[in-house]
Amino acid sequence: MNINKIIFVSPLNHEMKQLVEKHSLKKEIRFLTEEELSDEQLEWADALVTFKTSIPYDYSKVKWVHSLGAGVDNFTYKKEWNSDVILTRTITSFGQRISEYCLSYLLKDLQYHDQFQDQKQKKHWQPATPKMLKEAKVMIYGTGAIGLKVAEVLSSFGMEVYGVSLSGKKKEFFQDVYTMDSHLQLLPEIDYLINTLPLTEETETIFNETIFEKLSQVGFINVGRGESVSERDLLQALNQEQVRFAVLDVFTDEPLSEDHAFWQHPNISITPHISAVTTAEEAVECFVDTLRKIEGEEELKNRVDVRRGY
Amino acid sequence: MNINKIIFVSPLNHEMKQLVEKHSLKKEIRFLTEEELSDEQLEWADALVTFKTSIPYDYSKVKWVHSLGAGVDNFTYKKEWNSDVILTRTITSFGQRISEYCLSYLLKDLQYHDQFQDQKQKKHWQPATPKMLKEAKVMIYGTGAIGLKVAEVLSSFGMEVYGVSLSGKKKEFFQDVYTMDSHLQLLPEIDYLINTLPLTEETETIFNETIFEKLSQVGFINVGRGESVSERDLLQALNQEQVRFAVLDVFTDEPLSEDHAFWQHPNISITPHISAVTTAEEAVECFVDTLRKIEGEEELKNRVDVRRGY
Repeated sequence: MNINKIIFVSPLNHEMKQLVEKHSLKKEIRFLTEEELSDEQLEWADALVTFKTSIPYDYSKVKWVHSLGAGVDNFTYKKEWNSDVILTRTITSFGQRISEYCLSYLLKDLQYHDQFQDQKQKKHWQPATPKMLKEAKVMIYGTGAIGLKVAEVLSSFGMEVYGVSLSGKKKEFFQDVYTMDSHLQLLPEIDYLINTLPLTEETETIFNETIFEKLSQVGFINVGRGESVSERDLLQALNQEQVRFAVLDVFTDEPLSEDHAFWQHPNISITPHISAVTTAEEAVECFVDTLRKIEGEEELKNRVDVRRGY
Repeated sequence: MNINKIIFVSPLNHEMKQLVEKHSLKKEIRFLTEEELSDEQLEWADALVTFKTSIPYDYSKVKWVHSLGAGVDNFTYKKEWNSDVILTRTITSFGQRISEYCLSYLLKDLQYHDQFQDQKQKKHWQPATPKMLKEAKVMIYGTGAIGLKVAEVLSSFGMEVYGVSLSGKKKEFFQDVYTMDSHLQLLPEIDYLINTLPLTEETETIFNETIFEKLSQVGFINVGRGESVSERDLLQALNQEQVRFAVLDVFTDEPLSEDHAFWQHPNISITPHISAVTTAEEAVECFVDTLRKIEGEEELKNRVDVRRGY
C-alpha cells in the first residue's frame, strides 16, 4: 500500500514536524490544528496521525489512521469502524513507564512514606519495619503488552503476580491468569489491584461493587481508562475500606472537574493522565516504523483488531 | 571449635528464644537483658549474640561474638579487638530491603509524588511527564553486598550506575567503579548519591564539603552510617542546592533528638533506621548457620575483617 499524503493533528505537532523532517520521508505532510482539520482535508489525505479528534470525522476517507496513544477507544469505543481502514496504535516505552509509575506507588505504601512524613512533622522517632514487595500479592487486569511488562517488573522483586484477561490464558511472569468470572475467588487474598485494560464495551465499569465487595484493604491503581471504573462504587469501597487507597491516573472526564469528589478524598492520589506519556521522539519513531511496514506490506504488531477494540 | 554456652542480649530476645528452641541446638543458652549482662556472665559464655551493648565489655572472655546487625562499628570503630575472638555479622535480606528503600525514594522523586500531591490539594490538573529511571545517573558509595544489590536492582531499570570503593575495583552491575579520589570528577553529572559504606576511620565524615561542592541538585540517600556525614556540611549543601533533597535513615545520634535541625528542614526526609531491619526469623537463621559453620570449621562468609572494620 502506498501512503503519500499524511495529516498530523496533535498538540505535539511542532516537535513532531522537526523530528519527522529528519527522516526525509519524501511524503506530502500537513501539520494541522484541530480547527484546520476538515472532511476536505481528509479527502486529500491517505493517512491521519492523531491522538484523537474532538468531533468524529469520516475516517473512511483515508487508508490508514495511526493513533499517537496506546489506547484507541477514541476511534473504536461505541463507534463504527470501516474495516478497510487500517488502524494502528503507538507502542513504545508505555510498559516501562507504567511499571515505574505503579512500582512507585506500591513502594510508597510498603515503605510507609506517609507515616514517616507524618512522624517527621511531629519530630517523632518511631521505628516500623517496611514490608518487602515479595510479601505482597498483586492482581493485574490486562495481560497485554503493558500488563505483561508490569508483571515482569513486579515479579522480578519476588512479588506474587496474578493476571485477569478475557481468555484467562497463562502468560510468563504471571503465577496464574484468570478470567473475569474465575478471578473473583482470589480477590480476598489480594493486596493490590492494577488496571491496565483498554476501554471496550466489555470493560466499561468493570470495577464495580461486584469486585469491590470481595476486597479487603487493597490498594487500587488505575492506569487503564477511567470509564472502566464505577466512580460511585469506588467511593463507597473506599469509605468501607474494601479499598484502602486508590491511585488514579485516568478518569471518566478529563481534566477532572474542580467539583469532583475525588479531589477531596484523603485516600485518593490523583495524577493528570501522565503514567504513559507519548513523547514526540517515541511517537515519530513508531509512526515511521509503522509507515515503512505498511508500505512494505510487512506484519503490523501494532494494528488494532477493531472488533476487539485493542 | 566448640560453642556450648551462648548468651543472647537483644530487644528481639523473646521472639528469638522461641525460634532458637525450634532448632533443638543442645546448647546452654541464656537470654539476658542488657542489665543482666556482666563480666561474670561473659566469663561463663563461649559466645555472645547481640546488636550492641551500651557499655563496652571485655569480649576477650568469649570465643565468638555474633552481631545481629550488618554494621559492626559498635565493636570495631575506635576500639581494640582481640583477634583471637571471632567476630561475625548478620547478612540476610539487607541488600534487597535497602534496594527497595532506595528505589522507593528515587521513584518518589522521578514520578513527582510531592508535586502531584500538592496539585491535588489545589484541585489543579497540570500534566508533567515523569522521568524514567534510565534517564538518571546514580553514584553508589560502597560496592559490598549491599551496594552491589542496590546496583543490580537499579541497573535492571537501565539506570546508569557508578560505584565508589576503597580499591576502585570493577564489579558487575556498575558501569564503572572509582576510588574516593578519582570519583570526584564524575560528581557534576550525577543525579543521585547513595551511601552504603560501613563506618570506619576512613569513612567518618566522608560526606563533607569536598564532595558536596562538586554536586548540583542531587538527591542524597544515606543508608550507611550517620557518622559518615558531616551534618553541618550537609545542611549547607541543602541550603546551597548542591543537594536538592536528602533521605536519611541513619544519624550520628539515634534516636534523633527533638531539637535537631534535620526535623525542620523541608528537603530532608527522615526514617528511623529502618531501611535494613533484622527480623528475628532472619537473624536466627543466620546465627544457626554461622554456629554450624564455626563448629564444622567451615569458611565464614560473614566473618568481619577487624582491621578493615567490615
